[in-house]
Amino acid sequence: MIKKILIANRGEIAVRIIRACREMGIETVAVYSEADAEALHTKLADEAVCIGPAPSSQSYLSMENIISATVVSGADAIHPGFGFLSENSKFAELCEQCGITFIGPPANVIAKLGNKQEARNTMEAAGVPVIPGSKEPVCEVHTGLLLAREIGYPVIIKAALGGGGKGMRVAYSEEEFTQSFQTAQKESQMAFGDDTMYIEHFMEEPRHIEFQILADSYGNVVHLGERDCSIQRNHQKMIEEAPSAALSSKLRKKMGEAAVKAAKAAGYVNAGTIEFLLENNDAFYFMEMNTRIQVEHPVTEWVTGIDLIKEQIRIADGQKLSFTQQDIEISGHAIECRINAENPEKGFRPSPGTITDLHLPGGKGIRVDSAIYSGCSISPYYDSMVAKLIVWAKNRDEAIQKMQSALGEVIIEGIDTNVDYLYELLNNPVYQSGEFNVNFIDTIKH
Amino acid sequence: MIKKILIANRGEIAVRIIRACREMGIETVAVYSEADAEALHTKLADEAVCIGPAPSSQSYLSMENIISATVVSGADAIHPGFGFLSENSKFAELCEQCGITFIGPPANVIAKLGNKQEARNTMEAAGVPVIPGSKEPVCEVHTGLLLAREIGYPVIIKAALGGGGKGMRVAYSEEEFTQSFQTAQKESQMAFGDDTMYIEHFMEEPRHIEFQILADSYGNVVHLGERDCSIQRNHQKMIEEAPSAALSSKLRKKMGEAAVKAAKAAGYVNAGTIEFLLENNDAFYFMEMNTRIQVEHPVTEWVTGIDLIKEQIRIADGQKLSFTQQDIEISGHAIECRINAENPEKGFRPSPGTITDLHLPGGKGIRVDSAIYSGCSISPYYDSMVAKLIVWAKNRDEAIQKMQSALGEVIIEGIDTNVDYLYELLNNPVYQSGEFNVNFIDTIKH
Repeated sequence: MIKKILIANRGEIAVRIIRACREMGIETVAVYSEADAEALHTKLADEAVCIGPAPSSQSYLSMENIISATVVSGADAIHPGFGFLSENSKFAELCEQCGITFIGPPANVIAKLGNKQEARNTMEAAGVPVIPGSKEPVCEVHTGLLLAREIGYPVIIKAALGGGGKGMRVAYSEEEFTQSFQTAQKESQMAFGDDTMYIEHFMEEPRHIEFQILADSYGNVVHLGERDCSIQRNHQKMIEEAPSAALSSKLRKKMGEAAVKAAKAAGYVNAGTIEFLLENNDAFYFMEMNTRIQVEHPVTEWVTGIDLIKEQIRIADGQKLSFTQQDIEISGHAIECRINAENPEKGFRPSPGTITDLHLPGGKGIRVDSAIYSGCSISPYYDSMVAKLIVWAKNRDEAIQKMQSALGEVIIEGIDTNVDYLYELLNNPVYQSGEFNVNFIDTIKH
Repeated sequence: MIKKILIANRGEIAVRIIRACREMGIETVAVYSEADAEALHTKLADEAVCIGPAPSSQSYLSMENIISATVVSGADAIHPGFGFLSENSKFAELCEQCGITFIGPPANVIAKLGNKQEARNTMEAAGVPVIPGSKEPVCEVHTGLLLAREIGYPVIIKAALGGGGKGMRVAYSEEEFTQSFQTAQKESQMAFGDDTMYIEHFMEEPRHIEFQILADSYGNVVHLGERDCSIQRNHQKMIEEAPSAALSSKLRKKMGEAAVKAAKAAGYVNAGTIEFLLENNDAFYFMEMNTRIQVEHPVTEWVTGIDLIKEQIRIADGQKLSFTQQDIEISGHAIECRINAENPEKGFRPSPGTITDLHLPGGKGIRVDSAIYSGCSISPYYDSMVAKLIVWAKNRDEAIQKMQSALGEVIIEGIDTNVDYLYELLNNPVYQSGEFNVNFIDTIKH
């Protein structure tokens, strides 16, 4: 039995995990950088260990410091949260070697799914639809040109190890291809130390639909329905919801089954997410699998009633899933907005500083996941997301109204935030109609 | 259509109602006493009108001032919340006379149910079980003695117009009766200006089980299941939950049907609550009907998904209920704790003052209904309840763990609160077993 968990993260997700542990009677160890000595996660855990200076590379990304803190505190498991080391197969492997339970999938599964080409091949072999594209890595521009002609333009060129839009370019014609390929390759080399690329058919107006998976160590795999994460800016999600307005129950069943098949094909264990791109004609394609908890997991929790963090811990602890696919019901509608410390009027420039006055909404159907408090400081060293506001209502229209009312109630003084920007997005008739795709935010830019 | 609602209340319930209105696109008018100029409900409403000095009698209980504020602001309806004028039939009548929609039942229904003797007679005639007791008011001690002998000791002597434990005494024998009766009568005269009493058989170890009712103007009445409010101190509820650990689904059905019958017998319209006393042998008796929203309504909202305040507004607006009894499902378990500004170690003495530091829990399954913020002041003029903490989980055990974890996270500096006391109650094995009755808090007193 897991008795003590070290949370290798910070901010709201660290607080979220600490709360789950408290409710399960599991002791918690927070780790914190020097910048986070007064952070909420540091205060809320049973113990807290400083793991280094503010820059992530010297603290939250330092495997040695985190493993040391685990050993010293006597924790028997690590929850990595999201970001930082959560999808680092070397870290998972190191945990395995040190006899520490890594709350996530096995290291080899992370490695396999982290390589986009390998993941794609696994899915294709299992019969999960994948986007037409290169079956092998491409390093030379002339090989790429031949492949792109075969696949058909437009094509997207992606770094094999990429993420977050880095090392990614679209080419609409042969003329554009060469330069786009070389630029993407350069970016990939700089960001990931690797210039291996792959090429896919580029879908112009897809929706981003992802399925939440839970898989135990006994081969039981269920999906918890989808999240629609099409509202993105520069590949960063801003608003997520469950269920998606684009899915009929028939399509949900079909995609859900494909997601379960994908997880099984990967030998997946623990919570994970299968990301699909969905076209207007209901064709869908595997994009990637995220081998960790997602930022947007609360919308799934609210429509299913299932606590995903607790399930992660139970699975890592060797327990069987206590429910089957038939037991899972989707009820009502949930929306999440990511509140960031940034200024939308100045190109979404991050806005670190001290929160001098704070009022967050509460009441029926409102959930706030955050680590902020009145007087806390938002560090320039980390992600600018400071709170997640999640609402639930009987249906999508009521959920939108509730979110607007809740955003209207937020007071965060001392830093700039995107709260008004989010309000306007929710007010947009296209958003309200439910008929949008991943280009939505680009189309409303002035 | 109701377009603008004046909220004739303060504190968390005023904020709760304002939020429901915002979500429905209805304008709001807050009223506030001079002590509440900086209160959250005053700030959150679209408009705010000062209705007098701090003492309730000159502001929140002043019918003239509230009606004037309604007329001046052009509101077409009043939501009375709970307490203050919410169960005052004269106020409801005054609204009717002024052409203002009173969000609650008709004045004559309030009057009928407000008189305990009349309510009892109505229920008895309709076949709803009532506690053996006097059928008519008792003003003379010797009439009372004869009646008590007939009913059987112990008996409880209650003021016909009473509430909150005032004008209420138990007598275990003829020897005790005379003095108890006279004391209760004196108290009633002082508190309610009336010394009419009635006498009932006293149940020594009942549970307080109440059923939430919704009734529209077209004769449709449904119940939304029960709340167990047995955890009380001096007849003041401290912890409420839904569903009750004491009810089988068969008993729930039986009591629910009796509750619907009771509401129909009273000609009830809007949201209301039928309070029952339940004995160990599953016998239950009508105690009273509350003709307003209850403090503890959130637990029902969470297990049913229905927004009771919005339903109140829709019903007052002449809309039909959009669901039937068959549509209502009870899912999971919800618990509410009332956080009061009081000192349990000093006889629960109220603790007004300024909140200098505040952290309230959030995250999955946590709802906070409150009107406090860091820096706000808690006035000595009003009720000491400053926040309601509500949790939801799949089952009762998990809900208790979640509530304990959430209470452990609360930081309210500058005033005393009952947070630690509530934590201890939840920690008590008798509470955790679910086998308790209304005497629970008395039995754990040191």
